[in-house]
Amino acid sequence: MNDHEKLSGRLLKAPENFLSPEGIRQVGREARAGRRDFIRSAFAAATAAVAAPVALATSNPVQPGEGDSNIIELPEHSKGLGRPVVTDGYGKPSQYEVNVQRRQSPGLTQTAQASVSFAPLQSLFGIVTPSGLHFERHHQGWWDIDPSKHRLMVNGSDPSMLKSALVFTMDELMRLPSVSRFHFIECGANTGMEWGNVAVPTVQYSHGMLSCSEFTGVPLRLLLDMAGVDTKRARFVLAEGADGSSMTRTIPMEMVESGEVLVAYGQNGEMLRPENGYPLRLVVPGVQGVSWVKYLRRIEVGDKPYATKDEGIHYMDLMPGGLHRQYTNIQECKSVVTTPSGGQVLLDKGFYNISGLAWSGRGAIRQVDVSVDGGRNWRRARLEGPVMSKCLTRFNIDWVWDGKPALIQSRAMDSTGYVQPTYSQLRKVRGTRSIYHNNAIATWLVQEGGEVKNVQIA
Amino acid sequence: MNDHEKLSGRLLKAPENFLSPEGIRQVGREARAGRRDFIRSAFAAATAAVAAPVALATSNPVQPGEGDSNIIELPEHSKGLGRPVVTDGYGKPSQYEVNVQRRQSPGLTQTAQASVSFAPLQSLFGIVTPSGLHFERHHQGWWDIDPSKHRLMVNGSDPSMLKSALVFTMDELMRLPSVSRFHFIECGANTGMEWGNVAVPTVQYSHGMLSCSEFTGVPLRLLLDMAGVDTKRARFVLAEGADGSSMTRTIPMEMVESGEVLVAYGQNGEMLRPENGYPLRLVVPGVQGVSWVKYLRRIEVGDKPYATKDEGIHYMDLMPGGLHRQYTNIQECKSVVTTPSGGQVLLDKGFYNISGLAWSGRGAIRQVDVSVDGGRNWRRARLEGPVMSKCLTRFNIDWVWDGKPALIQSRAMDSTGYVQPTYSQLRKVRGTRSIYHNNAIATWLVQEGGEVKNVQIA
Repeated sequence: MNDHEKLSGRLLKAPENFLSPEGIRQVGREARAGRRDFIRSAFAAATAAVAAPVALATSNPVQPGEGDSNIIELPEHSKGLGRPVVTDGYGKPSQYEVNVQRRQSPGLTQTAQASVSFAPLQSLFGIVTPSGLHFERHHQGWWDIDPSKHRLMVNGSDPSMLKSALVFTMDELMRLPSVSRFHFIECGANTGMEWGNVAVPTVQYSHGMLSCSEFTGVPLRLLLDMAGVDTKRARFVLAEGADGSSMTRTIPMEMVESGEVLVAYGQNGEMLRPENGYPLRLVVPGVQGVSWVKYLRRIEVGDKPYATKDEGIHYMDLMPGGLHRQYTNIQECKSVVTTPSGGQVLLDKGFYNISGLAWSGRGAIRQVDVSVDGGRNWRRARLEGPVMSKCLTRFNIDWVWDGKPALIQSRAMDSTGYVQPTYSQLRKVRGTRSIYHNNAIATWLVQEGGEVKNVQIA
Repeated sequence: MNDHEKLSGRLLKAPENFLSPEGIRQVGREARAGRRDFIRSAFAAATAAVAAPVALATSNPVQPGEGDSNIIELPEHSKGLGRPVVTDGYGKPSQYEVNVQRRQSPGLTQTAQASVSFAPLQSLFGIVTPSGLHFERHHQGWWDIDPSKHRLMVNGSDPSMLKSALVFTMDELMRLPSVSRFHFIECGANTGMEWGNVAVPTVQYSHGMLSCSEFTGVPLRLLLDMAGVDTKRARFVLAEGADGSSMTRTIPMEMVESGEVLVAYGQNGEMLRPENGYPLRLVVPGVQGVSWVKYLRRIEVGDKPYATKDEGIHYMDLMPGGLHRQYTNIQECKSVVTTPSGGQVLLDKGFYNISGLAWSGRGAIRQVDVSVDGGRNWRRARLEGPVMSKCLTRFNIDWVWDGKPALIQSRAMDSTGYVQPTYSQLRKVRGTRSIYHNNAIATWLVQEGGEVKNVQIA
């Protein structure tokens, strides 16, 4: 708990910044006027009404009508009988959280069936993405497939690749040895608009094709063992989805042999959600989301990459010399500050907890540094545990805002020693005409008025 | 991956058990008749239709009408355009999972506002409990409290206990240094009916007052530091909820000083759910759920235990000699097999994955053993990572059922070396008239017909 003691000490040494008298007055005015916007001010508003007489939270509440204007009437929920258990079967978030939603970027694609909805990273905590807020990316819309009719086939590109093709029902898959693991999934096109110097306004739209779940399923390696696959010959796997887009992707056999690739039915404790591939999807840790084939119906093994339509036309990187880079599947080390971030407003100077996410497709996060001056000075952030391989890692660091413009950045390093690049470093290698695989350091400008904007600096 | 290689090898040596010809025929018959119950058979039905011609999962689907009765027409979802992104804001489970719900035990309490709904452990995977299925226990119903009006007060039982009382808005709490941690929560009365030899039929009702989440919040220690609490004098904390039950519980100061006790607003990545204390609850890792005060509005520090109504009347253990044991808050090491479990049916002999949960309020799980013969022989189960302190741990072990009656048990050991007791060991110390803190080894009887029943054996 040493990290925390340091933080705590630091905080106590700067109380005058946290307990700004004007902040206290402003919150008081807003509370009385009943017009405080919780979502907006969740990241804002200095104060602690230390000296004010407050009745709400005391054990002997003052009666309504007594005292001065700071005394609030005892609320209904402290007097009455609340709602019963199980009123509607499956629980939902509070009515006050209704704006915390995944959102579609208007006009991003021609149809809403081949589109994206972004996860609201600015409102999320920790590393688990609630399944109801997990980002969506569909190539031909989503389906709610009857699991009793769904099948998974394992076959070879020719008969010499395995002893016997197999077909599994969901029941059969769920009887096999299962494993549960936490992993992030990121679309290869996440942060893609930023290549062209477009400063997408919020972290939801700039980085929200990113989510993280506990996945449960069967290692694909086990299914290939059962089929008697000849892994000396069969060095590649083709994964095929059951939806109308016929999504097909090649996975190198080394990944399967590592035991990490899962045929998954569970996500965050329950069955996969329909938008995320119910009842079966491939989990390919560290690899871009398009390879995590949803509605998985077939695994074929073969002796060469398949060069499918989704590999030959999409998810390629246009390089400075005009060549296309293909089969660059692994999501490199990346991080982003989620609070404060674009579109939020700091209502007063004082103490803030800077919080964000870091991840790497090549392993675990080793270190995250945070700058509030555009990369001139860096401080090491605290990593929340457990720090897991190919999984989101939450970082936090304290910050006392002096009310002047600030440029907030985070820079992650993974267990291979790879350090997240600046935009100029990334563009030197990759040029400016790509769409995919942008892992550059992001910058949030806090303006003098407290408004936070997405900016790009070299 | 060595564990897994062993499993895989073992499986391949017993294919005749998994691929039962009668099982294959049965699944074929049922699939054609369209009457397979997925929920029931998710844990059942031997088969893999290896030799049968199956068109559904192939890349070149056979046209409808061709071939024999095993050929299934290409489904709509492989031909058409699916649903668009973000049709309803916050995602929901599949329509086929509608029976996976928390459920109230009829007649358990006199009103549904002072009742319990149990989490469907038999349908859950891994360790994260989806927030929509998190168990509920209310003392006076639940509320959806407006967070902009909610306050948390920190005060002393007398002025000498701290420098200055503090009142926090939610905004202020969310600006402070935050931490995120995975912990289980278990009601002290979980498995309480079993004391009286009542074999509750399913694991949902026998063990379902148990859930596990990633919690995010501020260490309570930090708030006490800010208030200048004199921790030499103030050795106890009183936590008070804002709902009409005026729930109040004493927490020993050592627990707060450890840094583990959190004032939490986040659960599984989003804000707490209303049923679980939105917008603020206390998280007291390892301690029974009643101390995790919901709708938290006040923390008082004092120099002795408070002996509140919820401590003086409820959550006490009636001991064999007639004495009451009080302030026994920590949930001892415990485990339960969730699959197969009561109410499920194994439709055929063959391979099964036995899966369950283990936890301890005193630290991490070190080992889980599983018996299929009522405790005569034990095998060590595989623990899914990460294994975290005061958190659920998922275990799995393979089992080939020979079709004869079996008695399935799990026995957990924690990092202190404590081993989960049998019923006779527990009753020797605690008698039979208790309600709370039953952590005995549970037993599921698999009957010859495959039906699974809850039984108690010494």
